[in-house]
Amino acid sequence: MERLMIEPLTAEAFAPFGDLIDVLGPPDRLINAGLCGRHHDLARLDFDAEGRAGISLFDAQARTLPHVLDLVERHPLGSQAFLPLDGVPFLVCVAEDADGVPVRFRAFLTAPGQGVNILRNCWHGVLAPIGAPGRYAVVDRIGPGANLQEYPLPVPLLVEG
Amino acid sequence: MERLMIEPLTAEAFAPFGDLIDVLGPPDRLINAGLCGRHHDLARLDFDAEGRAGISLFDAQARTLPHVLDLVERHPLGSQAFLPLDGVPFLVCVAEDADGVPVRFRAFLTAPGQGVNILRNCWHGVLAPIGAPGRYAVVDRIGPGANLQEYPLPVPLLVEG
Repeated sequence: MERLMIEPLTAEAFAPFGDLIDVLGPPDRLINAGLCGRHHDLARLDFDAEGRAGISLFDAQARTLPHVLDLVERHPLGSQAFLPLDGVPFLVCVAEDADGVPVRFRAFLTAPGQGVNILRNCWHGVLAPIGAPGRYAVVDRIGPGANLQEYPLPVPLLVEG
Repeated sequence: MERLMIEPLTAEAFAPFGDLIDVLGPPDRLINAGLCGRHHDLARLDFDAEGRAGISLFDAQARTLPHVLDLVERHPLGSQAFLPLDGVPFLVCVAEDADGVPVRFRAFLTAPGQGVNILRNCWHGVLAPIGAPGRYAVVDRIGPGANLQEYPLPVPLLVEG
């Protein structure tokens, strides 16, 4: 099985695939009498005209490392953000697209409390909490129509830390 | 100072003011080869035509109980959801409206990992993490125009557990 090494998750490294949702610098502004910093509009949410943003909750079972990546999926009609409610780190596998085929895979692991937003139509592995089960708020598209494409990997990848 | 007692946070009790975002029953469907339950579209997101949903991050200082509630605010152009990334419970004070004046105050305290969505134009206290500072993903309205009304309480309330 081919190996895929986990690399450091930075906003720059992840930018082609989506957005890192975390405190990454000073706040855009202080609110609530200076007791709270607002880091404004951190994710490129993107939905088709028939869709809208919604908040759902994924209650996901634990996975372990090394992790066998045997399938990726994408959502042509909308972006998808994952926001951990239990502080459980999760694996984020993504890939570029070549005429409908995922290529040049990358793997990242969030730190506790970090969220990510995956761009509309970007190939990604399914939610994979590492080491413990976890609840995740998910901001994605609510609406009619087919918003899921799956691609089973002919040769699975072994994702390692 | 008048006292306001914290009451149990249930979806029913909070419904007039917003939505409780948590695992509250069986999932709407199982996804990811049965390894994840999806609890679908849990929040009444509501934005005016010029606004859209965005994900921001609030980095808020700790508060303590009892808590002095001396101001509430509301957002006429959009709902506002708070999703804890560090598992820090937070105080949720809300009130009904009587011709622009907040009345009949209520106070709730989330459990670790619970989020809430506050309905558009509903009076509420500012984000108040209890016992520790915390980061919260906030799904609220991004757009032009005035979306904040504040109401300083003539007589503050002492919120107690």
